Amino acid sequence: MKRYRNGEIWDFEHEVAVPTNRQVILGLDGGTTSTVCVCISIMPFSDALPDPLPLLARAVAGCSNHNSVGETVAKETLEQVMADALSKSGSNRSAVRAVCLAVSGVNHPTDQQRILTWLRDIFPSHVKLYVRNDAVAALASGTMGKLHGCVLIAGTGTIAYGFTEDGREARAAGAGPVLGDWGSGYGIAAQALTAVIRAHDGRGPQTMLQSTILQTLGLSSADELIGWTYADPSWARIAALVPVVVSCAEAGDEVANKILKEAVQELALSVKAVVQRLGLCGEDGKNSFPLVMVGGVLEAKQRWDIGREVMEFISKDYPGALPIRPKVEPAVGAALLAWNEFMKECLQEPYRR
Amino acid sequence: MKRYRNGEIWDFEHEVAVPTNRQVILGLDGGTTSTVCVCISIMPFSDALPDPLPLLARAVAGCSNHNSVGETVAKETLEQVMADALSKSGSNRSAVRAVCLAVSGVNHPTDQQRILTWLRDIFPSHVKLYVRNDAVAALASGTMGKLHGCVLIAGTGTIAYGFTEDGREARAAGAGPVLGDWGSGYGIAAQALTAVIRAHDGRGPQTMLQSTILQTLGLSSADELIGWTYADPSWARIAALVPVVVSCAEAGDEVANKILKEAVQELALSVKAVVQRLGLCGEDGKNSFPLVMVGGVLEAKQRWDIGREVMEFISKDYPGALPIRPKVEPAVGAALLAWNEFMKECLQEPYRR
Repeated sequence: MKRYRNGEIWDFEHEVAVPTNRQVILGLDGGTTSTVCVCISIMPFSDALPDPLPLLARAVAGCSNHNSVGETVAKETLEQVMADALSKSGSNRSAVRAVCLAVSGVNHPTDQQRILTWLRDIFPSHVKLYVRNDAVAALASGTMGKLHGCVLIAGTGTIAYGFTEDGREARAAGAGPVLGDWGSGYGIAAQALTAVIRAHDGRGPQTMLQSTILQTLGLSSADELIGWTYADPSWARIAALVPVVVSCAEAGDEVANKILKEAVQELALSVKAVVQRLGLCGEDGKNSFPLVMVGGVLEAKQRWDIGREVMEFISKDYPGALPIRPKVEPAVGAALLAWNEFMKECLQEPYRR
Repeated sequence: MKRYRNGEIWDFEHEVAVPTNRQVILGLDGGTTSTVCVCISIMPFSDALPDPLPLLARAVAGCSNHNSVGETVAKETLEQVMADALSKSGSNRSAVRAVCLAVSGVNHPTDQQRILTWLRDIFPSHVKLYVRNDAVAALASGTMGKLHGCVLIAGTGTIAYGFTEDGREARAAGAGPVLGDWGSGYGIAAQALTAVIRAHDGRGPQTMLQSTILQTLGLSSADELIGWTYADPSWARIAALVPVVVSCAEAGDEVANKILKEAVQELALSVKAVVQRLGLCGEDGKNSFPLVMVGGVLEAKQRWDIGREVMEFISKDYPGALPIRPKVEPAVGAALLAWNEFMKECLQEPYRR
C-alpha cells in the first residue's frame, strides 16, 4: 500500500463532484490477513433493504489488527482503505452517514474506545461510528445487518458471538491458540502435528497422519517436524493442514477421526455457552434463533463435514437453531449493521434532524 | 556480553602461563535462557572420579540455542563462554582434551553435525568433541557422566531422554508447546489460563484459578488476560504461573487438581515411552535403572509434589526405577560425560597415543 503524509490520503476529495443527495455508509472488516472496506449508498427513511444491495465500491488492504501490526500501521491501513473505497465510489467524507469498523483484536471496551477516538478525528461529528469485533460483522453478514442470534466462526481461529434482540451480547472462545481455541483450524492441525510426534516417540498410537503430513510438508522424519513447526510463527500456516486431517479421517484413520470429533464438540460447546448465557433458546429451549456459520473449517469441501456435525450436535440441544451460511462478505455485514443502527438512531432522535 | 572481532576472543592465551602437564575438559550446558561452561582438570588414565571434583572455573553467558538467537549469535556466545572459562582457570586451548557441548535445539543429526563443524575450527584436531541435546547433560549430571538410564526434565519445557548401556538412545516429548509437551511448566500454566477463560465464557466450570491468576497478574478481568497472554511470546513468563496452580490445587480447587494430575500422567508417559523403547526395565519389567529428575516442575517447593506423584506413577510399572536428584549442575554433567567418553576412547585407541 502506498504511504501518504498526514492528510494526503484525502487529497482526492477536492477532485470529486459528489451528487448532493448522495448518502453512503462504509463497512469495514479488518481481519488478521486483510482488511476490506465496502461503500454502499443508502436511501434515508427507507426501512426495507434494496435487492440487489447498492454496492458502490470495494477496496482491500493489509492487516489492521493493532495487536499484530501496531497501532500506527493499523490506523494508516484503515484510513487508507476507507479513502480508497470512497474515492472509487466517486464520493467523499461529506456523503458518509455511518461507518462500522469490525476488526479482530477488539476484546475489551478500552480497545473499542481507543479506535473510536481516532475514527472520530477523521469524520465530521454527525457521522455515526460503530466499532465492533470482527465476529459481529460476520453475524450481520448472515442476518443482513440485524444483531440477533449467534455466529460461529471457525477458520484459523474460532469464536462464537451472540446477541439478544434487546441488545445483550456474549462471546465464547476467540482467545487464541494458547487459551484453548481447540476447535479452530489451528487447533485441529496442531493436534494432528502432536499426534505425529507422539506416534513417533511412543507416547501415542500409530496414525496415517505421520506419513501423510510429512509427505505434504516434504519432510523426511518426525524430528524435522519440530524445526518446521517453530521456523515460522504464523498460525495460518499450521491451520492450512486441516484438509490433510480430514482426508485421513475419511480414509478411516482413528486418530484423525478423534481429533475432528473433539473439534466438533469444542465448536458446539462455544455456541452452547453463548446461547445459554443469552437465553437465545427461550425457557423451554425450543425458541428459534439464527445461527450464522462462517469460516473454512465449517465449509464442507470434503465428505467429513465439520460444519454439518457441529450443527447436528447443536440441534440436539436447541432444535430452534436456524443455520445460515452468509451470501455476502463480512464487510457488507458491517455496512448493513451500520445502516441498521443508523436507521434506529434516526427514528429515535427525530428532533436532531 | 562483550563482543569481539574475529579471533580477539582468544587473545588472552598469549598472556597465560599454563602448567605443561595441565589437562582440562570443558562442559557446556546451553539452555534457552543461559549458557554455562565449566572447566575441570583431569588426570589421564585415572578411572575413578576424584571427590570433590577438580572444578577450575565456571563462566556464564546468554542464550545459545540457534533456533532462538540464530547461528551467528549462538556461535559467538558459545565461543566466548568457553574462552571465559579457560581464561578464568588459567588455561588455554592447548590444555583442552575434550569438550562436551550440550545445547537445547539439537533435535536432529544435521543440527549436531553443523555445530561439530564449527567447533572443529576452534580447537586443535586431537581434541575430542561431543555435541548433545541438553537433556543428555542433565542425565549425566545425575549419573556422574555415565550414559545409562533415563532423565526426565520438566521446567518451562519437558523432555525424557534415555540410554542403554550399549549406547542405544531414545527420547520422548521435548517438541515444544505446539507439539504436545503437555506436562511442562508452560503446559500446566497454559491449561490454567485456558481454564480461566473457559470459566469466564461459560464453556468450563468455575475455578479458584480465576481470581488467583488475575490477582497475581494484576488484571481486572478475564478479557484482559487475552491481551496479557499475547503481549510477550516468552514461554517462561507463562510457565512462571505453575506455583499459583499448585497453590489452588492444595486449597482444594478441582480444576487445578485435574490439570496437575494430567501433567503427572503426561510426564510419566514420556518416561514410560523411553523405558519401553529401550527395554531399560528388562524383559520382566523389574530391572533397575537410574531415573534422573530435573527441573522446577519436579522440585517440590509445595505440598502438592509433582515429582513425587510422577515417581509413584512410574514405580507402579517399573519397580526398578531408581530416582536420582542430581547434586551437580548440567554443565558439570556435560564435563563428566566428556571425561567418560574421552577415557573410553583412550582405552580403545592406544595406538593413537
